[in-house]
Amino acid sequence: MDLSELKFARRFDKVTGSAIREIFKVIAQPGMISFAGGNPSPDALPDRQVSELAQYVLAHDGKAILQYGATEGYAPFLESLKSYVEDQLGVSVPAVLPVTGSTQAMDLLCKALLDPGDTVLVENPSFLGNLQCLKLYEANLVPVASDDIGLLPEDLEEKIRTYHPKLLYTIPTFQNPTGKTLTEERRRKIAELANEYGMIVAEDDPYRDLRYEGNTVHSIKYYDRNGWVMFLGSFSKIISPGLRIGYIAGDAGIIRKCTVGKQSTDVHTANLNQAIVDQYLRRNLLPEHIRSICEGYGLKMRKMLQFLDQFPEGVRFTRPQGGLFIWAELPVSIDAVKLLSKAVERKVAYVPGTYFCADGGHLNTLRLNFSNSSPEQIETGMNVLNDLIQSEI
Amino acid sequence: MDLSELKFARRFDKVTGSAIREIFKVIAQPGMISFAGGNPSPDALPDRQVSELAQYVLAHDGKAILQYGATEGYAPFLESLKSYVEDQLGVSVPAVLPVTGSTQAMDLLCKALLDPGDTVLVENPSFLGNLQCLKLYEANLVPVASDDIGLLPEDLEEKIRTYHPKLLYTIPTFQNPTGKTLTEERRRKIAELANEYGMIVAEDDPYRDLRYEGNTVHSIKYYDRNGWVMFLGSFSKIISPGLRIGYIAGDAGIIRKCTVGKQSTDVHTANLNQAIVDQYLRRNLLPEHIRSICEGYGLKMRKMLQFLDQFPEGVRFTRPQGGLFIWAELPVSIDAVKLLSKAVERKVAYVPGTYFCADGGHLNTLRLNFSNSSPEQIETGMNVLNDLIQSEI
Repeated sequence: MDLSELKFARRFDKVTGSAIREIFKVIAQPGMISFAGGNPSPDALPDRQVSELAQYVLAHDGKAILQYGATEGYAPFLESLKSYVEDQLGVSVPAVLPVTGSTQAMDLLCKALLDPGDTVLVENPSFLGNLQCLKLYEANLVPVASDDIGLLPEDLEEKIRTYHPKLLYTIPTFQNPTGKTLTEERRRKIAELANEYGMIVAEDDPYRDLRYEGNTVHSIKYYDRNGWVMFLGSFSKIISPGLRIGYIAGDAGIIRKCTVGKQSTDVHTANLNQAIVDQYLRRNLLPEHIRSICEGYGLKMRKMLQFLDQFPEGVRFTRPQGGLFIWAELPVSIDAVKLLSKAVERKVAYVPGTYFCADGGHLNTLRLNFSNSSPEQIETGMNVLNDLIQSEI
Repeated sequence: MDLSELKFARRFDKVTGSAIREIFKVIAQPGMISFAGGNPSPDALPDRQVSELAQYVLAHDGKAILQYGATEGYAPFLESLKSYVEDQLGVSVPAVLPVTGSTQAMDLLCKALLDPGDTVLVENPSFLGNLQCLKLYEANLVPVASDDIGLLPEDLEEKIRTYHPKLLYTIPTFQNPTGKTLTEERRRKIAELANEYGMIVAEDDPYRDLRYEGNTVHSIKYYDRNGWVMFLGSFSKIISPGLRIGYIAGDAGIIRKCTVGKQSTDVHTANLNQAIVDQYLRRNLLPEHIRSICEGYGLKMRKMLQFLDQFPEGVRFTRPQGGLFIWAELPVSIDAVKLLSKAVERKVAYVPGTYFCADGGHLNTLRLNFSNSSPEQIETGMNVLNDLIQSEI
């Protein structure tokens, strides 16, 4: 029989692969200024430090590191991670599971919770990769309305009453793709609604430490009474995405289901990578490293905002206090997907906003990343975009 | 609302976690002789070499290694891996995907292919972890009959005609848990049946290189005409399981679906780990390393077989030519689950065979691993088991 007769699983019917990752391939051309992607700056990647730590951990615990590990995590890391997470959140957490990047945290949480057709509430726009994850679990995605500071609790409550969702997926701090940060008051309200109605919150918070202005706010998890909030964290933005180390923290019963799911997903997260991050925590190397990252990223963000201030009237954009992204809305007559082709011809790339929208549309929007370009590239690239937009008006 | 009201996903209804991994925790007690698990011997884990290679790759390509990578794989590894796989198999393969341990290859293949209720044919007994994976995809598992050398093609064809399965999952070489190796003739026949009826074969071959006697046989993939056979490989047994590097090779369309599935599973396999294995391939370090592993493991296997020869009449066992496991059948009156408690009291552990059986039962069987014990531990442990069995007869 010819292989063209093969039928793939139903879960792929509405999924064709992450558009953002396809864009990555196009922009790999030399000389391209990329405001696409969410990559850390090369300067921020501590290759020498990781090499030193790899040598250290392999010399001290090499046999255990190269052997099979427990699905629950590499024991020293499990210990340092739990106390790190509790420090970060300001509350104790019943359980923590190290995972292969926080993308895996989302995958395992979906595996633990979702049957096909279950309703999941999402921000609109939201992180593409996790929207794809939800689609592969055949979730019924329902967008919740937002204003300038993020999710609207009134609309959230209405959607909860109407759809009885299993899960809310939210990125409350320096959101991807908008850069918005939810206020403390709304975070408390979300935690209350989740506990009142019985809905799991997946609080995805990978950008938390990348704050260049303003004051830290408590997590949604901080206001959780009965354990309905699961906190998803990552070391991708503050150490290295290539190491693939993240975690999920919260209720022990849910973590247990995630652990059983992980047994047949990848058995355990690579020990060497867990051991390296463990050393970052034990040696308290993160505060200084994060301080130096934030210094550079803050300059780049302000630079990009300065250029946006010079864009034509009718272009609106967010003013984040941290993170990696700025969100822009062009006049409705301009299609950011079409504009991208012209920008790429002039060696500038970004991600059109429509790809982040669960309901499509929003063709006049785009996401700009500032972390992975030099100040000079930001100047050149933003001038190109300004030109292109001027000529479309 | 109390969290006890939370309903987990249906896919967990028949899955409670891998019994084998629970046994691992019990046997972590000091002084335990463990014939459970499938761990490489500590001697076989090249901690110094991995440390050297980690330094090398981080010095030469550190920024790229610590950055986000392509889901398709770290480019240098993708290249060296493809030629390695083609060398191994003796045929060209259209596509290869590096994955986070070959367990992930199985997970992604199931994600690409299986809807709930789809029939999957399995060996009986078979590898626990992948049986659990299949259960989490809510597959209908149908065991195929075997004889002393493995799967019976006649029964396979009958089951194909009756159940129209989507997939056959098989470990043809030094099978886990039986140690059996399928003959070349049956491999060809399986490939023919898969191509004739249109059934995907997941050929899981992690033990292939651990041969201590006899001659290498071609893979099932070697006899594949139209691309129905997907080959799952691993570096866990020949370099390190803790690094979590495996691969899946075969049809490009199927690999593409697995890649899309992987985007929202863990984005990509950790670059550092791929780069280390890449160096093993580029520097041609594997042949010598495998030779030294096989020397030690062969001695241990023969030692364990010598002791089994002294066991009471009525105890049957396989005589593998390689791999990590020997399978034993006790007189039917002996329950190997109950016997395990007594063995553990005397500091010896194994895995009862019933856990490997898709249809349960087979309570008089057990799996013995020889790779992770010293010759002295094999002597002591096998004498304890002989004692215990003698006293049960």
